[in-house]
Parts: sequence; structure tokens; C-alpha cells
Amino acid sequence: MSKVRVAAFSISIDGFGAGPVQDLNNPMGVRGAELHTWFRGTELFKKMQGGTGGTQGTDNDAAAQSFENLGAWILGRNMFGPVRGPWQGDSWKGWWGPSPPYHTPVFVLTHYPRPPLEMEGGTTFHFINDGIESALSKARQAANGKDVRIGGGVSVIRQYLMAGHIDEMHLAVSPVFLGEGENLFTGINLAKLGFAPYKTVCSEKATHIFIRKDSK
Amino acid sequence: MSKVRVAAFSISIDGFGAGPVQDLNNPMGVRGAELHTWFRGTELFKKMQGGTGGTQGTDNDAAAQSFENLGAWILGRNMFGPVRGPWQGDSWKGWWGPSPPYHTPVFVLTHYPRPPLEMEGGTTFHFINDGIESALSKARQAANGKDVRIGGGVSVIRQYLMAGHIDEMHLAVSPVFLGEGENLFTGINLAKLGFAPYKTVCSEKATHIFIRKDSK
Repeated sequence: MSKVRVAAFSISIDGFGAGPVQDLNNPMGVRGAELHTWFRGTELFKKMQGGTGGTQGTDNDAAAQSFENLGAWILGRNMFGPVRGPWQGDSWKGWWGPSPPYHTPVFVLTHYPRPPLEMEGGTTFHFINDGIESALSKARQAANGKDVRIGGGVSVIRQYLMAGHIDEMHLAVSPVFLGEGENLFTGINLAKLGFAPYKTVCSEKATHIFIRKDSK
Repeated sequence: MSKVRVAAFSISIDGFGAGPVQDLNNPMGVRGAELHTWFRGTELFKKMQGGTGGTQGTDNDAAAQSFENLGAWILGRNMFGPVRGPWQGDSWKGWWGPSPPYHTPVFVLTHYPRPPLEMEGGTTFHFINDGIESALSKARQAANGKDVRIGGGVSVIRQYLMAGHIDEMHLAVSPVFLGEGENLFTGINLAKLGFAPYKTVCSEKATHIFIRKDSK
């Protein structure tokens, strides 16, 4: 059955999914990149960058699983780019160059309209300016029975969590403290929302926690 | 050199070190006991309970290390017992029976005076009612070159962290969400306080994160 998933979403020990002051130089906020050390070391990541090498094993398996059976993605606007306010033409085409790593329709949440943007490799960005429910509905339809992955950022995941739409999460807890930035947990009671971890695996670089709604 | 350490301190993924509503039936708050599943399974814990069996390996090693080289403990009053307000005589002697698992002087932070309480096995509880600095000073002296372990709870650890007195922490992150209770991290920026993780090991039941002040 089609699921709405958060996968391979990296947070610090103290619960931050991005550092403060996101901008062109720090797309994930100050020190945010440290959250993703586990992913950047994997064979999968190297291959996505057109390279070779990288680690196999726990981190690579978790990364690979996060891309399985995806039919659509939803991203917050800040994950798509550093532009704020109305779009200034269509010159910004995402962080990823001509062939983004999604290879599916990607629904970008924004307050400002913009025509769809078709990229190489099967990725088309659709800009949704009428809310998270609309984006999810369109993503489900586009996914055609496959899963919808909520890519982030923190605020988008929190909105979908609180609206009760997320079925599963895979969080990668990196052994760093950020101390400030965007916190995934503050003010959200995941236990009361029905979530419980069901599997944990770890490497030196991350603890991968797999979470789903308790069927009890 | 003598260190001030937090060790084997269990928290949830969302940062809670105890659940809500601590009382005689729930010394660690509602669902707080789930934080300690990793410890209760170990050979060390079974032995401390006068039993046999239990697991060896990662969790047991981490538990054993937490008891090494200790010369004194500091505990918050709620860790010593459920009594609130002035002591009602000396009938409450802790949660642990006649021979508590400390085997050193233990300094209990309280607002209310009480004479020292000598137990079997080398544990003496000293009740300190003139603040955390006084307790630490007395504990250091009693430890006589060995380490002082801050046993908890959350609020005591937070006070010593913010006062800059803690050298090392070993946190055991259990794969549960509590969603409410006492949060170790809220409003504390451990990165800015100079702490960084230097080692991570994990079992299915906990991720053990070893943290110290960065020497940079």
C-alpha cells in the first residue's frame, strides 16, 4: 500500500534537523552539513555524485532503503533553494544541477506561484501554493501506488506529523550537538501521535531509528 | 585526574530523561522505566540484584564503565525518594533497600536538613541543603582523587552543566519516544558549552554516546 514516509532524515542528538542561518553558503544552516556525514560517506552517495568508492554496510543500506519504492516527493521551499519571497524568474533550478536525484515528480511547498520545471532524469518540480493537503493529494496521485517521501525540512515534516499524515519515519541520529536551529521534536509528542520505534541499527556515524504508527 | 561525570544516563530519542508524574509507583515518571531497558538486561544489573545471567557485550560494558573509578555520587532528592517537603523522620532510606548500589559517599541535594544516613556496603547518604557548589565541593573532597558521578535527575544534571562543572557524559539513548517529562536538552546549547561526542557504540536497546569538553 502507498505510504507517506520520512526517510534518512538526519538530526542531531539534541533533535535539530538543520542549523541556524540557512543561506546560499549553508543550505542546511550553520553546521547543518555535519548531520549528513554518515550519508556522504556511502557508496550510494558517491554514485549519485557520479563517483565511485564509499562505504557499504549499515549506512549505505539505510540510505538505499530510503530511495526504494518512491513515486513522489514533497519538499519545503527552503530545501529547494535559498530564494525567499516571490520567485525572480525561473533562474533558480534547485541545488542539484540539471539532473536532480529525485527521478519522480517533486512537489515544492511555496507561497508563490511558479510554472512546473522539468529537469533531466525524470524529475519535475511542481510548485504548490495552496497548502500541505493539496500537495499531499497531488503527490499521492502522482505516486500512483508507490510511496510519497516527505523530504523536509523540519517545519514541513512537523506540519505533516501534526496533521496525522505520516505513516513511517527513518531518522538518522548523528553524533553531534547543534544546540540551535530547527528542532524536530520541540512541542510535538510523537508517542501521543501514535509513533513508536520498531528497529534500530547503527554505525559509528549514525543511529538509524525506524518508526511507525503503532498498530495497537 | 578526578573528573565530574554523568554516566549511563538514559534518555529517550526526544531527549527526555524521566517521564511525567514521578511518584512512589513511577519513580522515573510514567513510562520512565522504559528508558532503562538496556540496563536491566545486563549481567551487571542482574548481579547487582543478587541474580545471575543477563547480557554481556555493548550494554554491559557501558554499564560497567559507568561504575569505574567512582569516589562519590551526587543525586537530586527525587532520585533518593518520593518524599517532598521537610523530611518526616528518617524512615525513608532510599529506593534500594539496606545495601544501596553506590558503595561511596552520596551527596543528596535537598532544601531540608537531615543527619547523614549510613547504609550497608559503604554507602553513606549526606543531605546537602546549601546548594550545588557546596555538594560538589564536599563530593570532590570525599572522592579523594577518584571521579564524582552526577547520578541525576535531569534537573540536577542541567544545573551542573550550566554551571560548567561537568567534564564528561555518557548518554544512553533508548529507542523510545516519551513526548513529555523532563527534557535534558531544552534550552541548553551543549555545543556552545564546549561539549562534543567522541565515541558512539550501540546495541539494539541503546545508543551509547560518549561526550566530553572539546580540548580545542
